Amino acid sequence: MEIAFIGLGNMGSAMARNLVGAGHRLTVYNRSRAKAEALGTGVRIASSPGEAVRECEAVVTMLAEDSAVEDVVSGESGIAHGLPNESVHIGCSTISTALARRLADLHAAHGQEYVSAAVFGRPEAAAAKKLLVVAAGKTETVQRCSPVFDAIGRQTFMAGSEPWQANAVKLCGNFLLASMIESFGEAYATLRKADVDPHLFLDVMSALFGSPIYANYGRLIADGRYEPAGFALRLGFKDIRLVLETARECGSPMPGASLLHDRMLEAIARGMGDIDWSGVARISALHAGL
Amino acid sequence: MEIAFIGLGNMGSAMARNLVGAGHRLTVYNRSRAKAEALGTGVRIASSPGEAVRECEAVVTMLAEDSAVEDVVSGESGIAHGLPNESVHIGCSTISTALARRLADLHAAHGQEYVSAAVFGRPEAAAAKKLLVVAAGKTETVQRCSPVFDAIGRQTFMAGSEPWQANAVKLCGNFLLASMIESFGEAYATLRKADVDPHLFLDVMSALFGSPIYANYGRLIADGRYEPAGFALRLGFKDIRLVLETARECGSPMPGASLLHDRMLEAIARGMGDIDWSGVARISALHAGL
Amino acid sequence: MEIAFIGLGNMGSAMARNLVGAGHRLTVYNRSRAKAEALGTGVRIASSPGEAVRECEAVVTMLAEDSAVEDVVSGESGIAHGLPNESVHIGCSTISTALARRLADLHAAHGQEYVSAAVFGRPEAAAAKKLLVVAAGKTETVQRCSPVFDAIGRQTFMAGSEPWQANAVKLCGNFLLASMIESFGEAYATLRKADVDPHLFLDVMSALFGSPIYANYGRLIADGRYEPAGFALRLGFKDIRLVLETARECGSPMPGASLLHDRMLEAIARGMGDIDWSGVARISALHAGL
Amino acid sequence: MEIAFIGLGNMGSAMARNLVGAGHRLTVYNRSRAKAEALGTGVRIASSPGEAVRECEAVVTMLAEDSAVEDVVSGESGIAHGLPNESVHIGCSTISTALARRLADLHAAHGQEYVSAAVFGRPEAAAAKKLLVVAAGKTETVQRCSPVFDAIGRQTFMAGSEPWQANAVKLCGNFLLASMIESFGEAYATLRKADVDPHLFLDVMSALFGSPIYANYGRLIADGRYEPAGFALRLGFKDIRLVLETARECGSPMPGASLLHDRMLEAIARGMGDIDWSGVARISALHAGL
Repeated sequence: MEIAFIGLGNMGSAMARNLVGAGHRLTVYNRSRAKAEALGTGVRIASSPGEAVRECEAVVTMLAEDSAVEDVVSGESGIAHGLPNESVHIGCSTISTALARRLADLHAAHGQEYVSAAVFGRPEAAAAKKLLVVAAGKTETVQRCSPVFDAIGRQTFMAGSEPWQANAVKLCGNFLLASMIESFGEAYATLRKADVDPHLFLDVMSALFGSPIYANYGRLIADGRYEPAGFALRLGFKDIRLVLETARECGSPMPGASLLHDRMLEAIARGMGDIDWSGVARISALHAGL
Repeated sequence: MEIAFIGLGNMGSAMARNLVGAGHRLTVYNRSRAKAEALGTGVRIASSPGEAVRECEAVVTMLAEDSAVEDVVSGESGIAHGLPNESVHIGCSTISTALARRLADLHAAHGQEYVSAAVFGRPEAAAAKKLLVVAAGKTETVQRCSPVFDAIGRQTFMAGSEPWQANAVKLCGNFLLASMIESFGEAYATLRKADVDPHLFLDVMSALFGSPIYANYGRLIADGRYEPAGFALRLGFKDIRLVLETARECGSPMPGASLLHDRMLEAIARGMGDIDWSGVARISALHAGL
Repeated sequence: MEIAFIGLGNMGSAMARNLVGAGHRLTVYNRSRAKAEALGTGVRIASSPGEAVRECEAVVTMLAEDSAVEDVVSGESGIAHGLPNESVHIGCSTISTALARRLADLHAAHGQEYVSAAVFGRPEAAAAKKLLVVAAGKTETVQRCSPVFDAIGRQTFMAGSEPWQANAVKLCGNFLLASMIESFGEAYATLRKADVDPHLFLDVMSALFGSPIYANYGRLIADGRYEPAGFALRLGFKDIRLVLETARECGSPMPGASLLHDRMLEAIARGMGDIDWSGVARISALHAGL
Repeated sequence: MEIAFIGLGNMGSAMARNLVGAGHRLTVYNRSRAKAEALGTGVRIASSPGEAVRECEAVVTMLAEDSAVEDVVSGESGIAHGLPNESVHIGCSTISTALARRLADLHAAHGQEYVSAAVFGRPEAAAAKKLLVVAAGKTETVQRCSPVFDAIGRQTFMAGSEPWQANAVKLCGNFLLASMIESFGEAYATLRKADVDPHLFLDVMSALFGSPIYANYGRLIADGRYEPAGFALRLGFKDIRLVLETARECGSPMPGASLLHDRMLEAIARGMGDIDWSGVARISALHAGL
């Protein structure tokens, strides 16, 4: 397919490489040009989002937050202005459900399509083509995008016919991850004060849950190894804020998410915004006087 | 070994069977005699805890809560009175860390040994000899008990030299399980109000976590199948209450556990004490007006 | 003074009357004209916000929420367009600190002044000229507005030189009120299950706190008299949402406010959005199985 | 009346003095004899609780916690052993509802009476005879004790016919006080980060609530004046723990109390157990990075 790709962070660069590897023709745009050039000679580099999408069948956006997405979509040189009729905007960024609804409306008004395709997985998984893709939108449109999903992930799930439903799934998934992190933090703090080695607890939990996710996060926290950040606490906080917004829209109280919100806000207030989000476990330790 | 076994509920019966299967000689005591007889003819049946332990090298207790353990240990016909010098009491029940400390002191005062050996796993795992055993106590004593652990579990962990440390690990582990249940409950409630099928979310989470525990509990909750109870909410509540007590002793606030406490207490107040503890997820649904 | 007044709900109408009574000349605008006419013949009625403010020295806005304030300020027929240079916009609505900052910037860009003047008190207090006024903005500008404050309230406080600081004080004040309501709700639920009459507890608390606020709210809740709403739960929820936003901006976790957020969201999800905000106490009762 | 008095801390000494002042004949017992002697020559000093009560019509106990009360009641030299038939034990200590029930049973078994008479007020109020007394027990017995209540307080409330109901009221009242403290702490932290002077907020809240309690606690916290402790955080924590126990017995979740529990536990873990309980507000400041 003729694909435009916007947003070449750690995740985006890996995904773009896999699209090229699968034989798609890529035009990319990134704020800093160096990352675009790093993709190699087979890839065209555009000087604006609008230029990048001019002849594509689909544009993939992979950006850090709502405001970044809004910036590349709107305005004279934005995606909505340049994207051909009937081409699809595939939003992979973790954004608010409210923005996903606005994007769907905006593209529809321009005769374009919008699909949310949230992805689970850290940069290593993106590089290894092992992302989980959660897509939502019109069935026909989502199907049209399947070559993209096949190129970047190991499995694709269909969340519903409204694009924002995929974002709701993504945000709830990150809530489950953050809850696990918080639980480790609280348990480790108590066990350390009980003179039990957190690594012993980790071994038991790894055997109990049989989950690589538990093993990896549990070890990061037991080791207190929060730098360099795989996923910055500041961004994790944003996701918890967003899941609370979605929950508010839906009329569904999520007290566990409220708790995570307050813990992460404290971590940021204490200067930990740039460490890995698993570092929120430090808060439990501090509260225990450790 | 010459082993006494007290407490033949679903878990205890399966463990006792495996001890017999491994070639140990068993004397059992249970409040209702029928369960003792169900173990078959190779097993002696005692008419009191004290009688059961009279000639054993080790006595295993597997009871529902602190008061039940105290009942079989104390008094004229109790374990502490009948257990030979230097024999070991192996406490497998999920009890408070405070009681574990009192038991250690009590047995020491009688010249006996006490080891906590908490187990993770549902009755099916017990039957399949796949429990995880978390032991704590004097190294030499724990080692002496290893034939027992080998007969009932698939792996044994050593939590520390104080018996109550094993109980702390067990309670923290159950806290992680309950946190996962709560997170599913909150996420499902939000997603149901967003018209997303919980089973779709479950599929994504199963792929993400790669954990049979997530898959099983996630399905129980997505299906709303809380009866018959694998582990009664009332007992799960007890464990969360106990982890909060341990946390208090240790001076370690656990706000996640406080949240679980309040959710489970509400579930019990609304008459759900006897359904499976995963049923606490109903509370999230009710709060969302579902 | 020559004053424009926009927003004639229960609060606004009472405040407007007191301004007239103090000898000020009023031009009013209200979406539904009937409320404007109810103020009597001495008051001019404008057909748009912009027209209302054309010759005023100060315009008072008293509206239900951010969006309503933005509507009357922006656009061709908005306040910012019509207000004379150096005249003052006195914002009395309970709005977000973020909007207060935007209003200050917007008016400054138009060579106009903006002052936040949050008010505490129910409609009866507004009618009786007993509001507490919390003002913030440039000292000189706030002083210029003192005839307005004197006409509507019993006491004026100066919160700081940035208008949004007054809004922060107002939101934190409503947080204290909501916390008191929640505390009554939890205590009453426990006491009812302990067969203690809530009115007995109310009598003790009234004597202990010696506060008319405690006496009034405590009685509303003990009587379960939530209709008609003095202050709708839906609006109270908005204020708690806003105090959490302010707290997030400031980097200050407020777990008590998070708790209130979740309780009120549940109340709204269960259809209680239009009863008095003290009705959130019903949630505690429901959770106790009452 | 012929009265025995046990427990001469700050509160107890003041209450005992007022009983003497009202013309009652007192026999006192206190662990450290100096405090007993400080009451002056008109007061007899006993060498054990049992001796103190031997000829009294009523014995008042005013001790710090459950274990202290159990110590003076039980055993050979305890109250239950020495108290004449039909005499009354008036328990003024802030104890658990569970202990209050046990005391009622124990005294009934000895043919004695038991009444709970919880008191609200700090030592200054006790000295000034301005306590609020919340009594519960058999109507006839409570009435018999009214000369005692009249001598120590300004008003007496009847909570119910079961003694523990008075303790439930006391614990819920302390929960309301602690909630107010927590709310101030959270609001001040946010306002300090918004560059608003906490004293300004205090002035507004004092005018709004019109409550000396708000004015006093609000000032303590705004000033950060937590020493010497009027009421130690450690004891306040105990009361929140007890209200949670009562709530659990009653099947009534109190998430606000759970929050307070975790805040106070953190304060104690950080070494603040001996400052005034209003000092829990420091936790909010710390969490905001102040």
